[in-house]
Amino acid sequence: MMPEAASSNPVLVDVFRGPRVESCHRGAIAISDTEGHLVLTLGDVARPVYPRSAIKALQAIPLVESGAADAFDLSAEELAVACASHSGDQVHVDAVASLLAKAGLDESYLACGAHWPMSDVATQALLVAAKRPRAIHNNCSGKHAGMLAAAVYLGLDPRGYETPDHPLQVMIARILSDTCGVSLDPTDMGVDGCSLPTYALPLSALAQGFARLGTGAGLPSERARSGQRLMEACFAAPVLVAGDGRFDTIVLRGLAGAAFTKGGAEGVHCAALPELGLGIALKIDDGAKRGAERALSEVLAALLPKAWAVLANELEGELHNWRGRLVGRMAAGEDLKRALRALPRAGARAATG
Amino acid sequence: MMPEAASSNPVLVDVFRGPRVESCHRGAIAISDTEGHLVLTLGDVARPVYPRSAIKALQAIPLVESGAADAFDLSAEELAVACASHSGDQVHVDAVASLLAKAGLDESYLACGAHWPMSDVATQALLVAAKRPRAIHNNCSGKHAGMLAAAVYLGLDPRGYETPDHPLQVMIARILSDTCGVSLDPTDMGVDGCSLPTYALPLSALAQGFARLGTGAGLPSERARSGQRLMEACFAAPVLVAGDGRFDTIVLRGLAGAAFTKGGAEGVHCAALPELGLGIALKIDDGAKRGAERALSEVLAALLPKAWAVLANELEGELHNWRGRLVGRMAAGEDLKRALRALPRAGARAATG
Repeated sequence: MMPEAASSNPVLVDVFRGPRVESCHRGAIAISDTEGHLVLTLGDVARPVYPRSAIKALQAIPLVESGAADAFDLSAEELAVACASHSGDQVHVDAVASLLAKAGLDESYLACGAHWPMSDVATQALLVAAKRPRAIHNNCSGKHAGMLAAAVYLGLDPRGYETPDHPLQVMIARILSDTCGVSLDPTDMGVDGCSLPTYALPLSALAQGFARLGTGAGLPSERARSGQRLMEACFAAPVLVAGDGRFDTIVLRGLAGAAFTKGGAEGVHCAALPELGLGIALKIDDGAKRGAERALSEVLAALLPKAWAVLANELEGELHNWRGRLVGRMAAGEDLKRALRALPRAGARAATG
Repeated sequence: MMPEAASSNPVLVDVFRGPRVESCHRGAIAISDTEGHLVLTLGDVARPVYPRSAIKALQAIPLVESGAADAFDLSAEELAVACASHSGDQVHVDAVASLLAKAGLDESYLACGAHWPMSDVATQALLVAAKRPRAIHNNCSGKHAGMLAAAVYLGLDPRGYETPDHPLQVMIARILSDTCGVSLDPTDMGVDGCSLPTYALPLSALAQGFARLGTGAGLPSERARSGQRLMEACFAAPVLVAGDGRFDTIVLRGLAGAAFTKGGAEGVHCAALPELGLGIALKIDDGAKRGAERALSEVLAALLPKAWAVLANELEGELHNWRGRLVGRMAAGEDLKRALRALPRAGARAATG
């Protein structure tokens, strides 16, 4: 263990109840262009963080770049679920099963472990059928299926694909490192909820990596095309990437082409804004998803005028109690508001860019 | 709205993954004796916070003090559920229904709104039966039933019992104010998830209030006896106060008599330590329950040697992933460790007190 005094990052989100701030979420945000110029930083963006599921699109690159996606004739749904933290609904399970079948495998190969689906509907269906959730219901099962398909196509042993020294994970670590422009410290690694390695890297580097993913700038052409194809699959099948009513699905559906977002556990969220040539990476110190989604909504709204309508509910931030009464509101913290006001506006960027 | 810059409270709990602190929880803690002398303060304990469900035992005082509990011949289970944030299991629903029936009412009077039970077993049973949760499954239904019984016994209209100007709520606000030794600002009020008023008051005052609740010192004798009876009911029926596997049930069962704890939403937790004559109140800034329970475990272990065994799992703080692999650990933050090391030890207190 290497204990580390967390710096006091600014408050990104306040949670009001009645007249008073009841809770708040501190964190850090980096917005970068493709060359690593930071358009905005708030809080400590140099401290490495575990990106968790926010980088699933980067982890899926070998599936496309290797030629596996073409060889197995993968659909947009199957590519999207390979980038997903899905809700475990039937549509997700079907896509994962299909992806595995095309690679000649079945769900027994999945090393992600099982958990109850995020989807109430899917959970209810399992319960009514007196069934337990399986690994295929794990929100990460599509990512794992995609890795398995890539491993099979590359002639690698599909068993052990989740370990850090498996050639596929070595390849993914290199892609992460190259795309984000940092060398990864192999000892600065955690194990993710789904048993894959998660390497710590700075928010500034993650933001640059997402700017590059979004535009292809600074990437080898085959990698740029692979990232593009994965993002387009997510825009084409947004419900596969998360699920009905969930943040990333709402953004991918409403801002297709303009914003690719992906959240991870413990309050990490990344975004690529291809039209603006920018990448965003943020982490809420305490790990709260509500803080990450609220903060990212503010950033997107500041950069993309059309995000206002798409994220109206998130930006309104109303909190209702069990009887539906309005009891509070989530709002951007003062430091976040100030930083966003100083940001070059999307319109201005488009006009000058 | 009165926005308020949250002071930067110290880190109470670190969440490690692999070698690195992935997330952390800041907050404030007050430990007080019955006279309001603060034995320990960490962070801003003067800023008012909404106590939420942490003060249910104080909100239940009128049920006993009025004579209603005797008149209706309430059992320990019924008194305990009146102080509960319960899991919605059958044992809880039965106790609430019984409490209401003894007062001549039924669940249609409950104003708390409905939510799915915290208990997976109870949720599963509802789903399999194709039923929706009702207000009686709300974790606060016992508190509401207790208020209704008190209102009926006092000859008050049971309808509207949840509004701030209902005589019962006025009475409860007075009890809160008197016990904690502060005057409440009627404008500094939020509406709770269950539609009851929640008045903001400082952690220092809450801690003093719990020291008094635990010992009866400084309270009118009938109030002291009422608090004592409610706590004894909770010690006698700990599963009614929360549910199987939940923090407060574990503490009440394992430390009966020595520690009465009660958590509330948004990371509030209070405790009375009758044998030591102390009260504890803490709030995690970001509202995380995991932070509140971990921090309170540390405080209890520092004050009560027998808490080590009872809270062994919480103090170990192991985090496992979906395949059961150990991937991280929750640990006390350095500031919390330092503050607790400086605390007079329980043994020493017992020896000198």
